[in-house]
Amino acid sequence: MKKIDHVGIAVKDLKNSNRLFASLLGVDVDKIHIEEIEEQKVVASFLKLGNTKVELIEPTSPDSPIAKFLEKKGEGTHHIAFEVVDIKAEMKRLKKEGFKLLSEEPRIGAGGKLICFIHPKTSNGVLVELVQPVKK
Amino acid sequence: MKKIDHVGIAVKDLKNSNRLFASLLGVDVDKIHIEEIEEQKVVASFLKLGNTKVELIEPTSPDSPIAKFLEKKGEGTHHIAFEVVDIKAEMKRLKKEGFKLLSEEPRIGAGGKLICFIHPKTSNGVLVELVQPVKK
Repeated sequence: MKKIDHVGIAVKDLKNSNRLFASLLGVDVDKIHIEEIEEQKVVASFLKLGNTKVELIEPTSPDSPIAKFLEKKGEGTHHIAFEVVDIKAEMKRLKKEGFKLLSEEPRIGAGGKLICFIHPKTSNGVLVELVQPVKK
Repeated sequence: MKKIDHVGIAVKDLKNSNRLFASLLGVDVDKIHIEEIEEQKVVASFLKLGNTKVELIEPTSPDSPIAKFLEKKGEGTHHIAFEVVDIKAEMKRLKKEGFKLLSEEPRIGAGGKLICFIHPKTSNGVLVELVQPVKK
């Protein structure tokens, strides 16, 4: 794995949280990229900081995984995403090392990137995401 | 703020978690930097990934803030740290913007860096750390 790509934070009100985190991080609120990720029933915003990002995630439906997270734990850090070069090779390696992947194949995440989540029970309570950037 | 510097993860058994995260991140377990931070009553290890790091934190005393976190929430993500250029200027700016700082002056963290925490109640449940690298 190459680096932390982003940290995902579950929030109740994206508009308010965009303003809050723009102020916290010193980012221009008008430069925040917002994207709906239908598969996960969320709307997410990305605040860029150098080669890392903060992702704020609001559920768009009560049966979104983020809605359930908010219900159970409240607002806060939801996952840590690491950049990988070859997601399929990493998934194979991690499975062999005993980590529990949440999908057998990579899925399509924000920005069309290939992603895969690792179950927190095999990584000390941390929901880990692998992200393979889109090849240009 | 410049980028995510590291994510801090509270763990019960640093030795086991070092092995686990070395395997997860594809890092050589012998290259993990371990450091006791007496002021916070913790021992912490740092796994370097590009220009970011994962910090694993085990309490060294039952009255460590990390011991209390583990008791209440179990193992998992504890804080997100952002690199800043001028911590005193950032602290002044954030205080003015309404964020609650956990210390009036920067404190000394791992590696002798200047750090300051922001209370999660003013940042959507996320404990935020500011880190100013040591000038060389």
